Amino acid sequence: MATAAFAQIDDPLPSWNDGPAKEAIVQFVKQVTTRGDAKFVPPAERIAVFDNDGTLWAEQPMYFQLEFAFDRVKALAPMHPEWKQKQPFQAVLEGDFKAVFSGGKHALLELMMATHTGNTTEQFSQIVEDWIATAKHPKTGRLYTDMVYQPMLELLAYLRANGFKTYIVSGGGIEFMRPWAEKVYGIPPEQVIGSSIKTKFELRDGRPAIVRLPEINFINDKAGKPVAINHHIGRRPIAAFGNSDGDLQMLQWVASGDGSTLKVYIHHTDGKREWSYDRESHIGRLNKGLDEANAKGWTVVDMKKDWVRVFAFDELRKVKVHD
Amino acid sequence: MATAAFAQIDDPLPSWNDGPAKEAIVQFVKQVTTRGDAKFVPPAERIAVFDNDGTLWAEQPMYFQLEFAFDRVKALAPMHPEWKQKQPFQAVLEGDFKAVFSGGKHALLELMMATHTGNTTEQFSQIVEDWIATAKHPKTGRLYTDMVYQPMLELLAYLRANGFKTYIVSGGGIEFMRPWAEKVYGIPPEQVIGSSIKTKFELRDGRPAIVRLPEINFINDKAGKPVAINHHIGRRPIAAFGNSDGDLQMLQWVASGDGSTLKVYIHHTDGKREWSYDRESHIGRLNKGLDEANAKGWTVVDMKKDWVRVFAFDELRKVKVHD
Repeated sequence: MATAAFAQIDDPLPSWNDGPAKEAIVQFVKQVTTRGDAKFVPPAERIAVFDNDGTLWAEQPMYFQLEFAFDRVKALAPMHPEWKQKQPFQAVLEGDFKAVFSGGKHALLELMMATHTGNTTEQFSQIVEDWIATAKHPKTGRLYTDMVYQPMLELLAYLRANGFKTYIVSGGGIEFMRPWAEKVYGIPPEQVIGSSIKTKFELRDGRPAIVRLPEINFINDKAGKPVAINHHIGRRPIAAFGNSDGDLQMLQWVASGDGSTLKVYIHHTDGKREWSYDRESHIGRLNKGLDEANAKGWTVVDMKKDWVRVFAFDELRKVKVHD
Repeated sequence: MATAAFAQIDDPLPSWNDGPAKEAIVQFVKQVTTRGDAKFVPPAERIAVFDNDGTLWAEQPMYFQLEFAFDRVKALAPMHPEWKQKQPFQAVLEGDFKAVFSGGKHALLELMMATHTGNTTEQFSQIVEDWIATAKHPKTGRLYTDMVYQPMLELLAYLRANGFKTYIVSGGGIEFMRPWAEKVYGIPPEQVIGSSIKTKFELRDGRPAIVRLPEINFINDKAGKPVAINHHIGRRPIAAFGNSDGDLQMLQWVASGDGSTLKVYIHHTDGKREWSYDRESHIGRLNKGLDEANAKGWTVVDMKKDWVRVFAFDELRKVKVHD
């Protein structure tokens, strides 16, 4: 038996303030892991899915994978002298992001294809590893892997300690996340689901290789998320965590399962320690999802109130905000 | 220390005769699981992939999923009176399999689409479960799930006991295998990879559903297998088991990895207990693969010599065939 003091020391979620969000999470985990409880779920069925951008790590001022693409344009520019006069590459090279985004989806797709394809999966993986080990966030100057949310790392570990399999289900590139997801989140490659391009098996210099083709295979966003979950996992998760309207169908899919389920939205309310945005944001818009969460009683995490700290590098200042 | 007698009792592969195939498997597992051995592989990287048809269960006189499709045509026929005069449905209803196959790939695709799509993933899963629980093999009269190879069941368990994650990588339908793979093989849905059709998330009667569309998503055969392995698992397996030329690229992909790898072909040599076929077979042709296995020293399992029994229902008759 744990005494009250011991329980406090043993808190598996020390970066979470006491409050309804933490309570809902802990309550759910207790239910589904307690043998004899009507809501008990066998370990094999304890699947939890997490969006990545804005849910496990930050996504402002723009998706980190886009920063990666821009850095790749700069690195590849010497081999592409024509990019100096060709949009959207010219805009990237001149640091004119307004001009980049004025090209819309088509321009971004062109950038992605030019920077993410043509090499083998092994080569691409190495490029990502090198970049993530050194590139710095434009605002904080921190490594991108330091821009992960400490409370979510604790949550991932807490769920795994309770027999859950944790998955990433992200709109980001599946092969952009896999090289570092295990080290940073403890999530192995086979539990990372994302958007993908087509690939092709072939012999390169007599050695088998998987080559990345400049063609979209799957966009893992909105209604694509439950489709990908079904394709990769083959069973319905019992817990889902997202932060935007792009995660809504994933949460709906989980919500419609039998038995006890946990649906959580991370709400970006902390303009000081992180960024404050929701219904009107151009990135990570949370509008319909917030309405549905409120209407259906899903858990909404108020980052400002519910999190003792956002990043590991934040000062620890545990405050009692809920009564 | 195990005495000789104790070791025999403790044999994790009792349905395998002593010989080069069994020795290669046991030797490989010892190497990659022995800390300090130069070939040691951490548990997270111990991925083993298995073809299904002809590798884990039988595939003669035709792929079992095709039998399922034919049974579905019969079950759905009352709702499709036009099938009585429409090929390839008419041929199926009349039991004229020669006529069915004379329609080629196009006819088979039409049969698959008519029998495998239009419903939700949950409905389809239930249909498969009901069928697999009752349908009988046309030659043996056994349940299809009794037509699995006992030595391979032991091998799957042996690998898992040694920290391996075991995957199915089959040309068969991913959602045809998932409903029973865990019960029969101990392989959970998230470790089943197969061919797939496109699916769509939508609201059906107000409830979220994933609907199966009559459109091919991915054919998991030949060069598709390493592509799917990379897509689903995201790392290169260290052991691969197949039985046909359709598995060749998967074995090549595994063979080209660093460190110790195990490449195994199951060779159908036992016309008495199972079926005998290889280079000329219309199903499960093993021609190029056999040449490459011989040339490169991959392990070729001679079902007749290497297996004490093929099916669990075979009489046990351990014979010493290798010296």
